Amino acid sequence: MKKIFTMALVSMALLSFSQSADESAIRKIYDEALEHGKTYPLLEELCFKIGGRLSGSPGAAAAVEWSKKVMTDMGFDSVWLQPVMVPHWVRGQKEIGSIRPSKGKAVNVNVCALGNAVGTGPSGILASIIEIKKLDELAALGEANIKGKIVFFNRPMDPKYIHTFSAYGAAGDQRRAGPSEAAKYGAVGVIVRSLGSGIDEQPHTGGTVYKDGIAKIPAIAIATKHAELLSQMLKADKDLKFYMESHCEMLADVPSFNVVGQLKGSEYPEEIVDVGGHLDSWDLAQGAHDDGTGCVQSIEVLRIFKSMGYKPKRTIRAVMFMNEENGLRGGLKYAELAKANNERHIAAIESDAGGFTPRGFGIGSKAPESVKATIISWKPLLEPYGLFDIGRPGGGADIGPLEAQGTTLIGFMPDSQRYFDYHHTPIDTFDKVNKRELELGAASITALVYLIDKYGLK
Amino acid sequence: MKKIFTMALVSMALLSFSQSADESAIRKIYDEALEHGKTYPLLEELCFKIGGRLSGSPGAAAAVEWSKKVMTDMGFDSVWLQPVMVPHWVRGQKEIGSIRPSKGKAVNVNVCALGNAVGTGPSGILASIIEIKKLDELAALGEANIKGKIVFFNRPMDPKYIHTFSAYGAAGDQRRAGPSEAAKYGAVGVIVRSLGSGIDEQPHTGGTVYKDGIAKIPAIAIATKHAELLSQMLKADKDLKFYMESHCEMLADVPSFNVVGQLKGSEYPEEIVDVGGHLDSWDLAQGAHDDGTGCVQSIEVLRIFKSMGYKPKRTIRAVMFMNEENGLRGGLKYAELAKANNERHIAAIESDAGGFTPRGFGIGSKAPESVKATIISWKPLLEPYGLFDIGRPGGGADIGPLEAQGTTLIGFMPDSQRYFDYHHTPIDTFDKVNKRELELGAASITALVYLIDKYGLK
Repeated sequence: MKKIFTMALVSMALLSFSQSADESAIRKIYDEALEHGKTYPLLEELCFKIGGRLSGSPGAAAAVEWSKKVMTDMGFDSVWLQPVMVPHWVRGQKEIGSIRPSKGKAVNVNVCALGNAVGTGPSGILASIIEIKKLDELAALGEANIKGKIVFFNRPMDPKYIHTFSAYGAAGDQRRAGPSEAAKYGAVGVIVRSLGSGIDEQPHTGGTVYKDGIAKIPAIAIATKHAELLSQMLKADKDLKFYMESHCEMLADVPSFNVVGQLKGSEYPEEIVDVGGHLDSWDLAQGAHDDGTGCVQSIEVLRIFKSMGYKPKRTIRAVMFMNEENGLRGGLKYAELAKANNERHIAAIESDAGGFTPRGFGIGSKAPESVKATIISWKPLLEPYGLFDIGRPGGGADIGPLEAQGTTLIGFMPDSQRYFDYHHTPIDTFDKVNKRELELGAASITALVYLIDKYGLK
Repeated sequence: MKKIFTMALVSMALLSFSQSADESAIRKIYDEALEHGKTYPLLEELCFKIGGRLSGSPGAAAAVEWSKKVMTDMGFDSVWLQPVMVPHWVRGQKEIGSIRPSKGKAVNVNVCALGNAVGTGPSGILASIIEIKKLDELAALGEANIKGKIVFFNRPMDPKYIHTFSAYGAAGDQRRAGPSEAAKYGAVGVIVRSLGSGIDEQPHTGGTVYKDGIAKIPAIAIATKHAELLSQMLKADKDLKFYMESHCEMLADVPSFNVVGQLKGSEYPEEIVDVGGHLDSWDLAQGAHDDGTGCVQSIEVLRIFKSMGYKPKRTIRAVMFMNEENGLRGGLKYAELAKANNERHIAAIESDAGGFTPRGFGIGSKAPESVKATIISWKPLLEPYGLFDIGRPGGGADIGPLEAQGTTLIGFMPDSQRYFDYHHTPIDTFDKVNKRELELGAASITALVYLIDKYGLK
């Protein structure tokens, strides 16, 4: 009895020492990020010196060189490029969208081509509009009502969702599948209501996916305010037409790279923990929240460890994935190489939800229950930093392909309320990022990586 | 045994019905706020039609009329004004701050007078500077080093605090007590580093408090970026002087009002639940986050109940307090009247921390443990809406005086990271408020009021 009691005391003491050591380490991580953090100046450089960096563009190439240099200059153990062929879609000159009432003046509206879309060319398309809310209305309307027209998908993101990513998910079929679905019934073009949270004048681009064997028709996004206007005008004027002109085209694939920086593990170097964001962005803005913040936060994780003199037991990698926006080739290539090289990626964390105040982490649905329980058991260490929301489903597009190799996927979850005001628009710029919010995100991810590194994931 | 089992089943069923009824009511509250909310257009009106509304100003008087009309038009059971005499401090023409190196050109910096401060008058003050970080350095330096000089309080808000209000609290003695403390040793003026989270060009005003029996000396705040500059220049040039000019003055008290709107309780009308913000603001901007958001959210609580057809059992009041910023006369008057009228205020909730994404509620330290436990027991109903952080110490300045009457104080706690970028500056404007964040705050407060109304606070 006495022995058991003594053992219990010893193990309580060890536990308490360990918890206090972890508390102290995590406190140091936050102090470093908040007092001496590099995320904000790095993001400023990425946004202003490079700016937009769509796959295949000179910006993307410059961002590859830039992130390689940043990580090399920080003295990471190794920094390298992973070659990957990427799609090369170009927008061309600015798009035109114009409402043409049967009587009265044309009204210009704010539009932009959807990523990957074909253009109308200089002659544009002038056609009648048919407005629908849901894709399955197409079949009910049939070719008789659709052929020769422009289909206008006008279902808003539902404001009732608390998490805006849920609203985005629920409205996203219009942009992704709308053009091919409309083309099946003879539509000549597609207008998609921008996937944005509010009513404003920003058009939101984003990738569309043409189905094989179906005619590729031009597709544009329209600002939500102008979608409302178009809908109103259409109610009053059935003979209204719309003129759309876009000059985008898909060129041949070009070579590009993922950029990887690494701190090698001291005890279990074969166990790899990835933390990443995507280096490519859309072309309309600086790609600040999408996903410059994820890139600089990933770099910051390794920098914080170095600055603290923390030698990870496991190998920690910062990965800047290429081509998340319109192909996911970087994420696929990374997983392909991991498999080919027999690497064991125990966890992959992605930050691709903006540089907002951290709220928690989502966990991939295929993670074993024991692993989820381990991560959730760290809540007492993370809640003092506002990380209460740990364990709901999550992940990330770029890390997704690793899941088949048994990697636990983890999605960094910052506050989501402002993200879809900026996402894929011309206003996703540096000034929309708050320094402290960005830094807290970097510290939060670093704290989680610290715990995974120290205790593993079982 | 069987009877007990049956009773258990019945009570489980009741519990489950009740929980599901609460879930459903709270869902309706959020739906109403997010789909048909009025906070955003109301705030826009308050910010643009009225703007700054410092106690005693025409703006404050207009805001009283405006909020009375808004609540009357919404059909609340009763709306009335509570007369209260308030201080009438005026800023006068724009302040001047100028660094005067011993050699070379003067450098103008961004400054503003502290609220309640005396001015320098048109002749200004030109004097040497002594920079200190902590108030207790004054005694060590003594009159020999301070007399005839301007004391420059330059301790930053500590970025390491996760909650920025803690950093604000820890740095606030410089602004509140600095002028009188410096005057004790013969200082002729005071410059206070702005209480802001970052390094920028905005001066932050805010109330200072002169101690009786000590000379009142002029006091200004300097933008953090210029505080850094002044400190650097001072290191290199000990003979540097500073010129400050301010034209503010305290006039005689003037009449003003708290504005109260009420829904009368159907079962326990004598039990009152207050929800409030303060109607006055500083004069430099529109007072959007401080505290236009709290006012419109308080009004929205009652409007949502009406729109849902929810008849509260208890009496619910929206209170727009006057003069939080430089006197707290409205909060004191409200509590005085509550006592004089033998009213029983079971809970008072204040929203005065900005219109940002809701994170939880703080509870007044004098609330009985049983009441805290009751509020915390509602977490499962509130967490789906991101309200995880419930139960840490909290309250509000205006509701503070009610605590002595046994009222449970509750502080609405939104995310705090951006608040001190705007607080008391010229950029606390409507465009800094995100519509969804504001609406979610209103819904969160309404949900809590619903639960307090339904179950009481025991």
